Amino acid sequence: MDIAAILDDIGAAMARATDRGRVATYIPQLARVDPARFGMAVALPDGRLFTTGDAAVPFSIQSISKVFTLALALGRMGDQIWARVGREPSGQAFNSILQLEHERGIPRNPFINAGAIVTTDAALAGHAPREFLGELLRFIRAAAGDDDIHINDRIAASEQATGDLNRALAYFMAAHGNMVNPVDMTLGAYFHQCAVDMTCVQLARAALFLTGAPGAPALVSAARRRRINAMMMLCGHYDASGDFAYRVGLPGKSGVGGGIMVVAPGRAGIAVWSPGLNAQGNSKLGTESVEMLARATGWSVFD
Amino acid sequence: MDIAAILDDIGAAMARATDRGRVATYIPQLARVDPARFGMAVALPDGRLFTTGDAAVPFSIQSISKVFTLALALGRMGDQIWARVGREPSGQAFNSILQLEHERGIPRNPFINAGAIVTTDAALAGHAPREFLGELLRFIRAAAGDDDIHINDRIAASEQATGDLNRALAYFMAAHGNMVNPVDMTLGAYFHQCAVDMTCVQLARAALFLTGAPGAPALVSAARRRRINAMMMLCGHYDASGDFAYRVGLPGKSGVGGGIMVVAPGRAGIAVWSPGLNAQGNSKLGTESVEMLARATGWSVFD
Amino acid sequence: MDIAAILDDIGAAMARATDRGRVATYIPQLARVDPARFGMAVALPDGRLFTTGDAAVPFSIQSISKVFTLALALGRMGDQIWARVGREPSGQAFNSILQLEHERGIPRNPFINAGAIVTTDAALAGHAPREFLGELLRFIRAAAGDDDIHINDRIAASEQATGDLNRALAYFMAAHGNMVNPVDMTLGAYFHQCAVDMTCVQLARAALFLTGAPGAPALVSAARRRRINAMMMLCGHYDASGDFAYRVGLPGKSGVGGGIMVVAPGRAGIAVWSPGLNAQGNSKLGTESVEMLARATGWSVFD
Amino acid sequence: MDIAAILDDIGAAMARATDRGRVATYIPQLARVDPARFGMAVALPDGRLFTTGDAAVPFSIQSISKVFTLALALGRMGDQIWARVGREPSGQAFNSILQLEHERGIPRNPFINAGAIVTTDAALAGHAPREFLGELLRFIRAAAGDDDIHINDRIAASEQATGDLNRALAYFMAAHGNMVNPVDMTLGAYFHQCAVDMTCVQLARAALFLTGAPGAPALVSAARRRRINAMMMLCGHYDASGDFAYRVGLPGKSGVGGGIMVVAPGRAGIAVWSPGLNAQGNSKLGTESVEMLARATGWSVFD
Repeated sequence: MDIAAILDDIGAAMARATDRGRVATYIPQLARVDPARFGMAVALPDGRLFTTGDAAVPFSIQSISKVFTLALALGRMGDQIWARVGREPSGQAFNSILQLEHERGIPRNPFINAGAIVTTDAALAGHAPREFLGELLRFIRAAAGDDDIHINDRIAASEQATGDLNRALAYFMAAHGNMVNPVDMTLGAYFHQCAVDMTCVQLARAALFLTGAPGAPALVSAARRRRINAMMMLCGHYDASGDFAYRVGLPGKSGVGGGIMVVAPGRAGIAVWSPGLNAQGNSKLGTESVEMLARATGWSVFD
Repeated sequence: MDIAAILDDIGAAMARATDRGRVATYIPQLARVDPARFGMAVALPDGRLFTTGDAAVPFSIQSISKVFTLALALGRMGDQIWARVGREPSGQAFNSILQLEHERGIPRNPFINAGAIVTTDAALAGHAPREFLGELLRFIRAAAGDDDIHINDRIAASEQATGDLNRALAYFMAAHGNMVNPVDMTLGAYFHQCAVDMTCVQLARAALFLTGAPGAPALVSAARRRRINAMMMLCGHYDASGDFAYRVGLPGKSGVGGGIMVVAPGRAGIAVWSPGLNAQGNSKLGTESVEMLARATGWSVFD
Repeated sequence: MDIAAILDDIGAAMARATDRGRVATYIPQLARVDPARFGMAVALPDGRLFTTGDAAVPFSIQSISKVFTLALALGRMGDQIWARVGREPSGQAFNSILQLEHERGIPRNPFINAGAIVTTDAALAGHAPREFLGELLRFIRAAAGDDDIHINDRIAASEQATGDLNRALAYFMAAHGNMVNPVDMTLGAYFHQCAVDMTCVQLARAALFLTGAPGAPALVSAARRRRINAMMMLCGHYDASGDFAYRVGLPGKSGVGGGIMVVAPGRAGIAVWSPGLNAQGNSKLGTESVEMLARATGWSVFD
Repeated sequence: MDIAAILDDIGAAMARATDRGRVATYIPQLARVDPARFGMAVALPDGRLFTTGDAAVPFSIQSISKVFTLALALGRMGDQIWARVGREPSGQAFNSILQLEHERGIPRNPFINAGAIVTTDAALAGHAPREFLGELLRFIRAAAGDDDIHINDRIAASEQATGDLNRALAYFMAAHGNMVNPVDMTLGAYFHQCAVDMTCVQLARAALFLTGAPGAPALVSAARRRRINAMMMLCGHYDASGDFAYRVGLPGKSGVGGGIMVVAPGRAGIAVWSPGLNAQGNSKLGTESVEMLARATGWSVFD
C-alpha cells in the first residue's frame, strides 16, 4: 500500500474543495485561523511517517485533549470513574445540559463537555491544577515522542472568558454532588487542557499508543486501550459519531479547532486538521479526508 | 486458537450463573421460556461450526430481524433510506417517542422501534406484506444456508395484540409524513418480522455475510456491509450500545427474546441466546458470554 | 356600563385591523373561512344580549367543546377523572407527546388534545359514541337555550382523515393503560365533538352556566363550576394561557376555528370569533377584543 | 361574615392534623423549624386584622419575595422585562434547567428560580446589591406598614453555601446573554432577597397593595396589580399552580419556608405559615387552610 500516494491524492482533493465548512468563532484565536489550512499525517508503529499539507503547523487540539485526560483519569481511578460518568452516546449536542437533569448530574460519556469536566475533576485527584497540567503534558509528550508541546495561554484565557456554559454544567454537577474539587479549580484545569497546541505530526504519533501495535508506546494496558477506542468510536464526534462510524469506521476524536485524531487499531495513528466545521461541529474536510483514507487503505474496523 | 475449548469454558461458566436476568413478559410466548436456557454458536467462514448448550433450540429473534430488514431496505432504496431514518445513537430507551417529536418524525436510527418501522415501511416498497415477509425469509435462509427458518404465527399475533406503543410511534411518524404505506399494513409486516424463530446455529451462520471474509455469502456490497456493522456497533444494543462496545468491542444486535447476533469482521459469525435480560433489555448472560469470547479470542475490533 | 357602546368600539377597532393572524389550514373546511369575519356577543344572566359583527354566523367551535365534555365527564365520574388526567398547565404545545412519556400516559390537563381524548374516553362510559354525542348536544343546547346546534359532518370527516397525531396520542395512552374504550371508538367520538358548529350568540349564552350568576342555568354544582373556570384560566389557551390571564384576566377556552368562549364569573358569558390565529394557535383579534372588553368593563377577576 | 370564627375553625382543624408534610432541609435554618407551627392572618383594607395560631412569629418568606422583586423590576423596566422572562407556567419543577435550554436562556416566568434570578438582575439596574436590597425592604415595609422587617443574614449565608443549582441556572442564562450584571453580584442579591423574615400579620398586610381595594396601599398601577395577580394565579405554586387554582381559586405565592401569601382581589390580604411541605414543595397545611378559607368566605375569583 502506497500511503504517500494516498495522502497526496487526499491533499490534492482537499485543495480543490470549495465548501470548507465554517471556522469556529466563539473565541477570537480560533476565528482568526485561515480556513484554507489543511494538514494530515499518518504515523506507523515502525516509525515511518507520511504527511500532506500543513502537517507541521500547530493548532489548538481543544476537545481532542479529552482522550488524554480520560487515559490519565483511568490511570488514577480505574473503573471507579464510571460511577461518575457514563459511557453511552448522548443523543444531544456536545454542550447540552438536558441530559444532566434527567440523569441527576451524571454525564453520559467522557467526551461531551460535562463528562470531560468530571474526568478532569477526577484526574486532579487532590493535586493542584498546575501539577495536573504538567502531568498531562508529560503524557502527551511521551505519547508523541516530542517535548515541544505546550499550552497556549492566550487560548486558555479566552476559554476562561467565554466559559459560562461550562460553568453552568459544572455547578449543575456540583449541585448533584458530582464535583470533588472547587468548581473554579476544576474549570481552570479544564480550560487549560483544551488549549494545548499540537501539529498533525505530533498528534498522529500521539495516537499510536492506542493502536496496540508492536513498537507503539505502551502507556496504558491493553484492556484500557480497547476501551478508550470504544469510547472514541461511540462518542468521539458528539452527535455525529454514528455518521463518522458509518463513513470512516475508525475510532476518532474531534476538536472544535478543526483537528481530528484517529486510531487504526494495530496499524496507524492518524491526524488531520482543517479549521472549517460542519453542522455537527466536526472538521468538514477532516472528516472527508479520513473517509478517503479509510476507503483507500481498507483500515475500517468493520471490514 | 481452540474455539471449542473457549465455548466449553463459557458454557460451564454460564451454567453456574445464579443471576440470569429477567425474562421478558410483555407477551406470553416470551414469558414462558425457561430462563435456564443458554446456547452459543460460532460459525467460521470456512464452514466450521462450534457450539455449546442449547445452540440448536429455536428462539424468537425479535429485534435481531431489524438487521436483515435494514439490509433489504438498503438494497431497495440505497442511501435514500437515510432521508427517512438517521444513523445516530438515540440516547433514549428503545421505544421512546420523545426524540421523534424533537426531530419531527425522523427516528434516530434503524434499530430503535420507530426506525425499524420506517425501515420496514421502506422495504415494503409497494409490495404486499406477504411478499415482503417471503423475501425477508429468503434473505435470512440464504444467509444462514438453511431453509428451515419460519415465522412463529402465535408470537406475531401476540405482538399485534400488545402493539399499542408501536402504533403510537407509527401514527406519529405518519402525522409527520414519514410513512408511505397505511400504518396497519406496515405494522402487520413489522409484527411478523419480529416473530422469526431461529437457533443459535442458524443465526451465527446468518451473520457470516457481514464478516466480509472470503467464503462468506456475498449478499450485500462491501461498503454496505461495513455500514451495517457500524450501525450495529453504534446502536445495536439500545441505550447500552456504549457498554457493549466497551466490554465486547464487536458489532452486535440484541433481541428481547434473549438472543444476540454478533459479527467479528473478517473472522466469524456469532450467536448467543439466554432469555434473561439486564436492566437495559439485552440478554444478561448473552452479553457476558460474548465478552468472555471476545477477550479469549482477541477479536475486538479495537485491538 | 354601556356594553353596547363598548362592543361597537371593539367591532370598529377590529374592522380596522390589518394583521388578522393566519387562518388554520389543516383541514379544508377551516382553510376556506373568510379571515375578514369577526363577531362578538355578550350574554348577561338577566337575558340581555349584546353583539357586534358576525355574531349570528355559525363557526366550528373545535376545542371549545372540551369544556362541555369535561363538564359531562365530571358529571359521570366526579373527581375520579383526575386519576386519569392532571390539572396543571402543560408548558408544551397543545399536541405534544413529550409530556405523556415523562408522565407515563397521564396527560397534564383536560384541554390539551391528549387530555381531551381521555376526557372523552371517560365521558363515553360504556355508551356508544352516538349516545355520547347526543348527550353532549343536549348539554350544549340546554346551556345555550337553543336547539339549533349541530355537528358538522364534513368537518368531522376531515378531522378523521387528518387525525394521525391524535391517533398517536391515543395509542400511546392505550399502551400505558389510560384508555377504557377501543381507540377507534373514542377517537370517533372525539373527532365529532370537535365539529360542533355554533354562533357567538349561542356560545356566549352557553357560557352562562359557568358564571354562577342568579338566573344562569344551573347545569353543574357550584364547586364544579369554580373548578372548570380554574382549569380554563390555567390551561384554556394552550401555551399562551399565562398571556391570556395577564392581558384579559378571565377564564376562557379557545378553538382552532378562531372562537373563544369566556366567562366573567357572576357577570356574563362572552364569545368572540375571528378566524385568524396568532403564533400560539389562538384567535388573534379574538384575544385582542376580549382584552379590550375586560379593560372597558373592569371584569378581570384580578381586579 | 365572621372571619374570626372561620379562622378559629381553621386553626382548630390544623391543630388536629397528623400529616403535616415534610419540612425543607436543604439549609439547616429551615430544617430546625418546628413542624407543629401554624399561623394565619387575614388583613382587610379597612385595617381590620384577624389571626390564628403563630401569626406573629417570623419565618423565612423565601420565594414569596419574588412577588415584591417583580413589582420592583416592573417599576424599573416596565414591560421590557418580558423580553427577558416569559409569563407562562413552566410545566416543570421550580428549579429545572431543561426549559432554559429549549428556550435559549429565557425562563418561563418570574416565579421559578431562573426567572426570579433574571428579575433580580433586572431590578438591580446598575445599582449595588446593597442598594437594591434596601429598596426591596423599603417596598415591603411600606406595603406591610411595618418597619420591623429584616433580612436574616444566617439564612442568606446558608443560601450562598448551598446555591450551586442557582449558580448553574445563572451561568446558563449568562451564556445565553440574559444576565446584565456579573453572576456573583446578582446571585448575592438573590440569596439575600430570599432570606427576608416576616410574620403572617406582616405578610397579610403586605399583600393588600395587590387587592386594589379602596384603602389599600397604592404601590403599583391598577394594570400592573392585575398582572402580578395573574402571574401568581398561573405560576405561583410551581408545578402545583393548577391544583391551587382548582382548590383555592385565588392568586398566591408560596415559599419553601412554608409560607403562602394570598390575594383576594378587592377584599383581603392573606398569609399562612406551616413549615411542612407537600410533594410539590408548597406548604401542606397552608394550602389546606387557604382552601378552607376560600370555601367559607366565597372569595374564589371563579365564583
